[in-house]
Amino acid sequence: MIITSEQVLSALKNVEDPDLKKDLVTLNMIKDLKIEGKNIKFTLELTTPACPLKDMLKNACLNAVKHFVAADAEVEIQITSKVTKPADGGQMKGIRNIILVSSGKGGVGKSTVASNLAVSLAANGAKTGLIDADIYGPSVPTMFDLVGAKPSARETEEGKTLILPIEKYGIKLLSLGFFADPDQPVPWRGPMASNAVKQLFNDADWGELDYLIVDLPPGTGDIHITITQSFPIAGAVIVTTPQQVALADTRKGLAMFRMAGINIPVLGVVENMAYFTPAELPENKYYIFGKDGGKALAASFEVPFLGEIPIVQSITEGGDQGSPVALDKNNPLSDVFWDLAGKVAQQIAINNAEAVNC
Amino acid sequence: MIITSEQVLSALKNVEDPDLKKDLVTLNMIKDLKIEGKNIKFTLELTTPACPLKDMLKNACLNAVKHFVAADAEVEIQITSKVTKPADGGQMKGIRNIILVSSGKGGVGKSTVASNLAVSLAANGAKTGLIDADIYGPSVPTMFDLVGAKPSARETEEGKTLILPIEKYGIKLLSLGFFADPDQPVPWRGPMASNAVKQLFNDADWGELDYLIVDLPPGTGDIHITITQSFPIAGAVIVTTPQQVALADTRKGLAMFRMAGINIPVLGVVENMAYFTPAELPENKYYIFGKDGGKALAASFEVPFLGEIPIVQSITEGGDQGSPVALDKNNPLSDVFWDLAGKVAQQIAINNAEAVNC
Ligand SMILES: Nc1ncnc2c1ncn2[C@@H]1O[C@H](COP(=O)(O)OP(=O)(O)OP(=O)(O)O)[C@@H](O)[C@H]1O
Ligand SMILES: Nc1ncnc2c1ncn2[C@@H]1O[C@H](COP(=O)(O)OP(=O)(O)OP(=O)(O)O)[C@@H](O)[C@H]1O
Ligand SMILES: [Mg+2]
Ligand SMILES: [Mg+2]
Repeated sequence: MIITSEQVLSALKNVEDPDLKKDLVTLNMIKDLKIEGKNIKFTLELTTPACPLKDMLKNACLNAVKHFVAADAEVEIQITSKVTKPADGGQMKGIRNIILVSSGKGGVGKSTVASNLAVSLAANGAKTGLIDADIYGPSVPTMFDLVGAKPSARETEEGKTLILPIEKYGIKLLSLGFFADPDQPVPWRGPMASNAVKQLFNDADWGELDYLIVDLPPGTGDIHITITQSFPIAGAVIVTTPQQVALADTRKGLAMFRMAGINIPVLGVVENMAYFTPAELPENKYYIFGKDGGKALAASFEVPFLGEIPIVQSITEGGDQGSPVALDKNNPLSDVFWDLAGKVAQQIAINNAEAVNC
Repeated sequence: MIITSEQVLSALKNVEDPDLKKDLVTLNMIKDLKIEGKNIKFTLELTTPACPLKDMLKNACLNAVKHFVAADAEVEIQITSKVTKPADGGQMKGIRNIILVSSGKGGVGKSTVASNLAVSLAANGAKTGLIDADIYGPSVPTMFDLVGAKPSARETEEGKTLILPIEKYGIKLLSLGFFADPDQPVPWRGPMASNAVKQLFNDADWGELDYLIVDLPPGTGDIHITITQSFPIAGAVIVTTPQQVALADTRKGLAMFRMAGINIPVLGVVENMAYFTPAELPENKYYIFGKDGGKALAASFEVPFLGEIPIVQSITEGGDQGSPVALDKNNPLSDVFWDLAGKVAQQIAINNAEAVNC
């Protein structure tokens, strides 16, 4: 019996991507199919390298081929990815998906989530950039141990000067903090701040990026308005802590993305600082700031709940020492952030696919 | 032997106010001296009802009279206070001292400190007001259980409309949150926000106030510039948490007050969320966010360290339920905030006295 491509593809038509709700063949995810006798080789091209369904899909393909084609087939599946982009995302050359990390509230962990999200995406193989758009409290220099770093620039053939993002942990980074004295306050009026942020997008040499994470300042001010109106945004990740006081502000921060004229997909809500567990009492969870506030927020806005992050000293330390905790695969917290990154990437892939299909 | 006023006053000249570094008679703090035989009555007029030296000074007066005048004298000392104001503080009619609660960093507890400071000052008998100047994340409505409250207004004889602050827990309150839908974001550009804040100062019927606390938004933006340039400020209380990331921003927030053209006295630094102690392990202090960062910041800027506040669930709950923890004298945390209020009031009295004397 000779195994044909048609047989294999028809088998793989039985495997559905549960997110995109179509089979892998229709989704054009099966590439480079090669058959030599009983050896079947192909590449599964996912919509993101951080896909949480990676292993599940691979197994499903394997089973489908064995079941529908030949039980004794030798199946070798390579996994790659080609990150999709929003239907209207063509404006920013080379940048596929801009992801905002936001909250109405200050100090809830936006920068912590943004940094660890970037680290997790990059570690999964995605081409990742990070813009720190917080003019008054830029955290990226500290969180990536880059205090005092100064980006260089290059001239294009047309004579335009482009800022070169600084590379660290496989991420291309720019922070408003790189352009200001870290000890001097920047009492800039709103419009000046917005212009400075715009330059980080427009006048920098980002090259090709799958994901550009943007760490936003607290509030719903000038910078938010400018960014949401000037650039095509794939979606916003909303960070909150469980307090009512925080939720009230976060609710407004989330509602902003749904306003007419802004209309940015909310990828989901992360509940940060959910509880504290002392090392001496590993069974105990102290819900210091309240319980399940983020979950309730996600439910009330009907957006995905992306998970909860406990209060852990190593997260603070990772931030203070310039080495985000997601880098350290020995720390169980890195799984928390890798999971989060998977869910965010997944949500974007779903949105992009829907946009393409309608 | 007949006791004379001269004798009593000359005895009291031996009692020095350790803050103001002068004796009580020279400071004109002894009022209504009445002598009837061995009965000596007078009033000690302090510079703030929240004076932490109250008891100490009263005792010192008592001892001085007994020692220098008559060991068997019956001394009755009433304590009152007349809050002083900065030398250049005459511009805001009726408001003696405007105190800013600030930090470069978001979510460090500015609103928590501002609320509990206001509650503590008022509970000590000071005429206290509170302005919530956070346009994007106003917390006062939640922290005082006033969500949805709408201030009324009255017309002056000159036909000007004045907003009437809402009174709660003995404090006159105004929040930008009273003028916006609590669920709707306010994506205002900076200058609009600043104008709205100015109105809370200028177009409201504050009456007579010893202290007007202003809860500032995070950062060093439009609202900060506007307030510091438009109104006479007695001083700023700087709130930080112990992380490097927070300290970096707070440092800039503090430095802003020292900039030429702003030049506002820094009353001191409060370290919030200093440590956590689980109920089951009352001996343990978990320095989740780092240790002594606020103390080091105060030292490096040579400003007073006003104390540390632990992470305690009842503080979160007090904020979320609209009943600041300082109200509850059964909660040991209320002492923490009363102490803080005493130190702040003391620092202001010192600054005001120095300003008068030079
Ligand atoms: N889950 C956590 N456990 C321990 N520390 C945390 C956690 N999340 C954040 N932190 C720490 O809390 C502080 C505030 O977090 P972060 O700076 O990320 O908040 P933010 O929302 O970006 O603040 P801002 O509004 O000022 O930009 C940081 O020092 C950070 O390291
Ligand atoms: N010492 C503490 N223990 C427990 N919870 C606290 C403590 N201090 C503040 N909180 C809680 O942490 C949250 C943040 O505090 P708060 O709102 O006062 O910060 P903020 O600096 O005013 O924030 P923003 O920058 O958004 O204005 C609130 O829910 C508050 O109740
Ligand atoms: Mg931040
Ligand atoms: Mg606040």
